[in-house]
This record gives sequence, structure tokens and C-alpha cells, in this order.
Amino acid sequence: MFDLSTLVAEMRETIPLTRALALEGLRYDGNELILTLPLAPNVNDKGCAFGGSMAALATLTGWGLIRLGLGERRLPADLYIQDQQTQFLAPAWQQIYARCSWTQADKDTFLNNYAQRGKARASVEISCSSDDVEVCRMQARYVALRPGS
Amino acid sequence: MFDLSTLVAEMRETIPLTRALALEGLRYDGNELILTLPLAPNVNDKGCAFGGSMAALATLTGWGLIRLGLGERRLPADLYIQDQQTQFLAPAWQQIYARCSWTQADKDTFLNNYAQRGKARASVEISCSSDDVEVCRMQARYVALRPGS
Repeated sequence: MFDLSTLVAEMRETIPLTRALALEGLRYDGNELILTLPLAPNVNDKGCAFGGSMAALATLTGWGLIRLGLGERRLPADLYIQDQQTQFLAPAWQQIYARCSWTQADKDTFLNNYAQRGKARASVEISCSSDDVEVCRMQARYVALRPGS
Repeated sequence: MFDLSTLVAEMRETIPLTRALALEGLRYDGNELILTLPLAPNVNDKGCAFGGSMAALATLTGWGLIRLGLGERRLPADLYIQDQQTQFLAPAWQQIYARCSWTQADKDTFLNNYAQRGKARASVEISCSSDDVEVCRMQARYVALRPGS
């Protein structure tokens, strides 16, 4: 079964930067994923979270949500980030949580498209919060391609 | 004197993620900054560069260019990334180079604004390349504020 712990183990094994970020999985219910980072390894010169860490967390959370869907359907794919718009809304002074969700209809459409065509795109929004304040918001588009294509 | 080696030493001391990225300074001529990352610590599940690493490099390169200008004028400031749009154009299979420049007129306007008002914004574009292919482009806006404000 491809679940949240499989995802995080895979990320930590194949993307070494996730270990430096100290990325952890928090929750996945089939349509929403929450990943989290502690502040200490992600601090900046001001003592709050480095924007690059927050953006990496958001990128991984959108990627992870789609990767989980592909894994549940046992669809092998190379999943790439294609473009993103990121707004940094406030400094993060605590643990950072990133949340990304899609409706069952959007998930089904994406996975059916990919299963049929071997290529599909998904646009998702990721929201990062710290100490109950929204600190960063990202609109991101990903593309899934047949492995090695 | 606040120069490229001062900048990179400051980044590596105050932003621990830059050590995980293995960030290095390559060149600075007063108007253009080039920073670089090796592939190995920044690889992803496909064996090319993690998008989050490329975006962090681009974020740091824009930030670094403005930080150098502030440092040259001995203007203390808290410099924050405010928003960014990032296009991932191609996978990066080698060392990644990020380049960011501003004209002397744009640099002077930003620094004079900041010196007079204690707050200024700058919009810059950062281009990342690998093996002579442009792999990532970012439009980023930064804001400089009086320290601790």
C-alpha cells in the first residue's frame, strides 16, 4: 500500500534535501496532505523561516499529494513541478505546516487522464501556516509523464 | 568591505539550509551575481535537480544581489522575499548556476529609496542554467525594512 509513511520514506531516500529540511508527514486522508518542517534547520538571518525552505515544503506537499494518488492506483510516473507562484505573507517563527488538497473529482480526472494518455497536468494550491498564521501560499502546476519519457 | 565571499560566508552561517544545498559564490561584478549548486546534494527521485533546490538557489541569488548592494552602502536592513513566479523549463542534470543582475540605475534607485525611507522594494529576474541549458526562471520581489521593524 502506498501511504503517507511510504511517501515520506521515499522522499527522504530519493531527495536528500528533504533530510536537511527535516521533512515529516503529518496527515493524509485521501484528498488532503499535510507535511511539516521544524524551524531550527530552516531558519534564516532574521531568525524566522527561510523563504526557500517554505517554498520547498510547499512544492513537496503538492507533489506528494499527486504522488499519493498515483501510488494508490499503482500508476508509475515521473512527476515534475512545472511552474509556481508563491506569496510570502508573514514571517514564520515556529514549526511550519503545509496543506494541499484536491476534490475527489479533480483527483479522478487527473488519474484517469494519466492512465489513458500517459501524461497529465494538475494545478493545486498549497497553504503554509505557522502558529496559526498563514505564512505562505503557492499555486503550483505539476506534470506526470511516463517514466523515462 | 562587503563582497561576494562575505555574502556567502554570512549565508552559510545564518541560513543552515545553504550548507545542505552546498551553495557556492561564483562571481559578482557590482551589478550581476552568480551563485551555484552541485547536483549531488540536490538530486531528486528522477536523478536530476530537485525543483525546490533550484527555486531556493534562485531566491538566494536575487536576495544576495540586493544584500550586496545594501552591504556596499553600509545600510543595515532586514531583506525579505515577498513573492515569486517560477517556471521550470527543463531538468538539470549537472551543476546549476543562477544569475541575477540589475542596472546601476535600478540599484541606485533602490538603495537611495531605502536610505531615505527605511523601506524599499526591488523586482529582479533570476535565470538558472545547467550544462548551458536554461532550466529555471524566476521573477522575484524583495522588500528591505529597517532591522527589527
